[in-house]
Amino acid sequence: MHAGDFPLTLTHVLRRMRTVHGGSEVVTQVDDDGRTVRTTYADLGARIDSLAAGLRSLGVDQGDRVATLAWNSQEHLEAYYAVPCLGAVLHTVNLRQSPEQVAYTINHAGDRVLIVDDSLVAGIAAVLPELRTVEHVVVIGARDIGDTDGTDGTGDIGGVPQVIRYDELLAAHQGATVEWPELDERLDAALCYTSGTTGNPKGVAYTHRTLMLHTLVMGAHDTFRVSEQDRLLSVVPMFHAMGWNMPYIAGMLGADLILPKSYLQPAHLVRLIEDEKITGSSGVPTIWMDVLRHADEHHSDLSTLSNVLVGGTQVPPTLMRAFDEHYGVSIVQGWGMTEILPGATVAHDPPRPSGQDRWTRRAMAGRISPLYEVRITDEAGDVLPSDGIAVGEIEIRGPIVATEYYRNPEATEATFHDGWLRTGDVGTADQRGWLRITDRAKDVIKSGGEWISSADLESGLLAHPAVLEAAVIAVPDPRWSERPLACVVTTTDVAPEELNEFLADRFEKWWLPDSYVFLDALPRTGTGKFDKKVLRSRLAHGETDT
Amino acid sequence: MHAGDFPLTLTHVLRRMRTVHGGSEVVTQVDDDGRTVRTTYADLGARIDSLAAGLRSLGVDQGDRVATLAWNSQEHLEAYYAVPCLGAVLHTVNLRQSPEQVAYTINHAGDRVLIVDDSLVAGIAAVLPELRTVEHVVVIGARDIGDTDGTDGTGDIGGVPQVIRYDELLAAHQGATVEWPELDERLDAALCYTSGTTGNPKGVAYTHRTLMLHTLVMGAHDTFRVSEQDRLLSVVPMFHAMGWNMPYIAGMLGADLILPKSYLQPAHLVRLIEDEKITGSSGVPTIWMDVLRHADEHHSDLSTLSNVLVGGTQVPPTLMRAFDEHYGVSIVQGWGMTEILPGATVAHDPPRPSGQDRWTRRAMAGRISPLYEVRITDEAGDVLPSDGIAVGEIEIRGPIVATEYYRNPEATEATFHDGWLRTGDVGTADQRGWLRITDRAKDVIKSGGEWISSADLESGLLAHPAVLEAAVIAVPDPRWSERPLACVVTTTDVAPEELNEFLADRFEKWWLPDSYVFLDALPRTGTGKFDKKVLRSRLAHGETDT
Repeated sequence: MHAGDFPLTLTHVLRRMRTVHGGSEVVTQVDDDGRTVRTTYADLGARIDSLAAGLRSLGVDQGDRVATLAWNSQEHLEAYYAVPCLGAVLHTVNLRQSPEQVAYTINHAGDRVLIVDDSLVAGIAAVLPELRTVEHVVVIGARDIGDTDGTDGTGDIGGVPQVIRYDELLAAHQGATVEWPELDERLDAALCYTSGTTGNPKGVAYTHRTLMLHTLVMGAHDTFRVSEQDRLLSVVPMFHAMGWNMPYIAGMLGADLILPKSYLQPAHLVRLIEDEKITGSSGVPTIWMDVLRHADEHHSDLSTLSNVLVGGTQVPPTLMRAFDEHYGVSIVQGWGMTEILPGATVAHDPPRPSGQDRWTRRAMAGRISPLYEVRITDEAGDVLPSDGIAVGEIEIRGPIVATEYYRNPEATEATFHDGWLRTGDVGTADQRGWLRITDRAKDVIKSGGEWISSADLESGLLAHPAVLEAAVIAVPDPRWSERPLACVVTTTDVAPEELNEFLADRFEKWWLPDSYVFLDALPRTGTGKFDKKVLRSRLAHGETDT
Repeated sequence: MHAGDFPLTLTHVLRRMRTVHGGSEVVTQVDDDGRTVRTTYADLGARIDSLAAGLRSLGVDQGDRVATLAWNSQEHLEAYYAVPCLGAVLHTVNLRQSPEQVAYTINHAGDRVLIVDDSLVAGIAAVLPELRTVEHVVVIGARDIGDTDGTDGTGDIGGVPQVIRYDELLAAHQGATVEWPELDERLDAALCYTSGTTGNPKGVAYTHRTLMLHTLVMGAHDTFRVSEQDRLLSVVPMFHAMGWNMPYIAGMLGADLILPKSYLQPAHLVRLIEDEKITGSSGVPTIWMDVLRHADEHHSDLSTLSNVLVGGTQVPPTLMRAFDEHYGVSIVQGWGMTEILPGATVAHDPPRPSGQDRWTRRAMAGRISPLYEVRITDEAGDVLPSDGIAVGEIEIRGPIVATEYYRNPEATEATFHDGWLRTGDVGTADQRGWLRITDRAKDVIKSGGEWISSADLESGLLAHPAVLEAAVIAVPDPRWSERPLACVVTTTDVAPEELNEFLADRFEKWWLPDSYVFLDALPRTGTGKFDKKVLRSRLAHGETDT
């Protein structure tokens, strides 16, 4: 026997959370008036025991999949621990998907139990009869979920044999103490499906080991910088890459966790920041743009907030500067994917910042975090120098990086090779591990054989005072193969010429968009990113203005 | 294939250090005048390649053991990476041991190569012929090492076939690029022997995984709190529990590393703190008591220093308060052992400190760190409650905790059981993971069936203005079985009655020492701790005063 026989499993986090950090707090907003429900990690531990005993009574065993279709709440957090620590796999279903996609992922995963918010039952009622493997539906909340099978109105869900209320399941097992099984660290703990823009969603299974290692890395000062002193606002949905792993990071390190359920409107978030004295958070840029706008309008007090890890898509420098200047809040850009979890790079200020350099650095995707390694490859798959100049596809590897898609050999074959993951992101890496992402591979604009970065043009446009939103896409061009077209939302009327003049300060002339489309709002994906696929399709069908 | 196939090996740290943190600095003090040699992690990487190529040329292969007998220096640091990343095992020999113990550990480990400081060759010359497995001796430094075999004075070392100068070995392989092998994370990377107070030293082998996990845990804010912003003074000898793992922590997180070689006198350390703008360090209390005294006398500038992790033995609260009040330096108590590495507990201020509570907490061994779990057992081996009251032996487990002694089944059998390590430390644990260590099991004083804490009495005595050093030991007593005897070093004459009166404010009457012995200095072990074994033996032989 050797050191290391003690496995890296979430069971350790569960034990640590309910004892060492038993005094730390979990707060869930439960209604539109901002009412909250509060508990401690110690009390949460007791409820996790009850939930685990309840799931066992439903027949959940090691290796079984249990789905959640839920907002960020205490109950969802309880499932985050009870399911993996039983040795089962937590499948966090993306509630922003279409009902058909929800059904596809649940069938693909073969989930035996579905835990669902009462408010979300109606939305998937139509596809419930298609769920081939679900034996039990556990409903969070006391709301009447209607008579979905048209028989007697008692809350039956058509086609599904068993409907149980979450609270009743826990009450039936109150005071239960669970003998948690000893698990192998390479056992799957959780399962997320990527909201792929083409084809069916692809599943990424996280082992206990993966989630534990990510939890350890994100405690570091130069990554997510979480400690027991923190009160974290969990804005990222718990169905997106495990809520960026914040639930386990908080549990391991003892940070308080504030869960907003579906109340993600800026007024709610700003009130939570003020009332709950939030110190840290995370999310996509659009959410934090909304928060900024609301806070500016209402002279909000964001003084407790210190670090916000923002990613999912390029973070506009204007957003970072505004938070820094108005509120002293560090909006720190990070880069991640479902396949690699968030924070694979983080763009903290270098130790010795110096004027210009500071914002140049902070506008980058960030520096590679411990346990991750990156390289740049060209279209032939050859490795390019990490010199900050050569542009190519970013490949990544490490013990946190997935090595396959769940039950999907074709997608696995196309994406993973020789221990490396093709990220589909295009950019540069320098010798100190700083990444600049110029585009998603599919968003790349190739004009006259040279790459034009849509992300850079978007940042440039957003710096214009009249521009609220911007998305630049490629349109076919007979001479140059592709040329950039900019879709923008502006506060006042502004001429395309003025915008190009504004961009000309920062970009080569041949980078400037050939045409502009002015919209009332940009279409967004389920994750809140601008949906370029929809833009391309609309524009292909001649819809050039609204 | 699943996430996690990428192993947790030090090779990742090596790659990261020389690229991502290639600009960070390594500084070695090389003479008594304070002259330093400086390099970057990038340049260090090139030298590590040369060393690895050199070691390979000497026949070092995977699984082989390579010994170092060296102070903290750049060369020692190079061996820290080259040896384990070749798949060989770095045996850091304790140079404070007797030559016979040095020979015992090298023979026991079966080291094939010995890398030794020129200044240390003479000290082990007598036992060199007894080293049965060493084929090559590599000498760091250019100093004449004498004619140890009495033949020709050219620097031959008697009985050892091959003597090579370290610098010549590197020069012969300058510019080499090494294909680092892919290693299993459960391969042994390093080997330390504990300076056991009885019997032969016992070896603890650290796997790559163990050192990597410790490195990750120690980056956290509530443990060692290291980041790229830090300049770490590596005071703990690199042969004690891997220099408390600071070399790898610094390499992984990009902290600068300042190595004092043998210049550990307070004047040198204080000058390094001032000149090199040290931000963090670690060590045993005695070293930091000496630093405090020197700094106070010379009005030194310790303003850059922020955190010092101190452990190895109980840290006197007076030391912590003085550093806090005079310099604003946080002396943070930690607890560790060779078998568990340092920082298994760390006594940072709780998030919401409150007057008295702050110093009570900080006087404890600390709170259990992530990846460690503890429990308290009685003499029958039954588990006692973690209520902060029940006193018993502390047991610990986790993926960083050793599970055996190297090639020593008897010692393994006596210390490890059911995944737990019997630490030999006695104390309490509370439900929030805070440990109070009242004694080493062998230092316990059991009087009338009740435990008296020698560590508590020592802290109490040190609070008296005239007391410089204090060690309390048990002496046999016909009525109470054992009674405490205090050995003290004082600045002025002070009567035992006065000291007992001073202690009476804090302790029950039956805790007070029955007798005092006044000494000029307390004997110390090789690691700088007070040597109670020597005290007990001296006192048993009637030596009660000096």
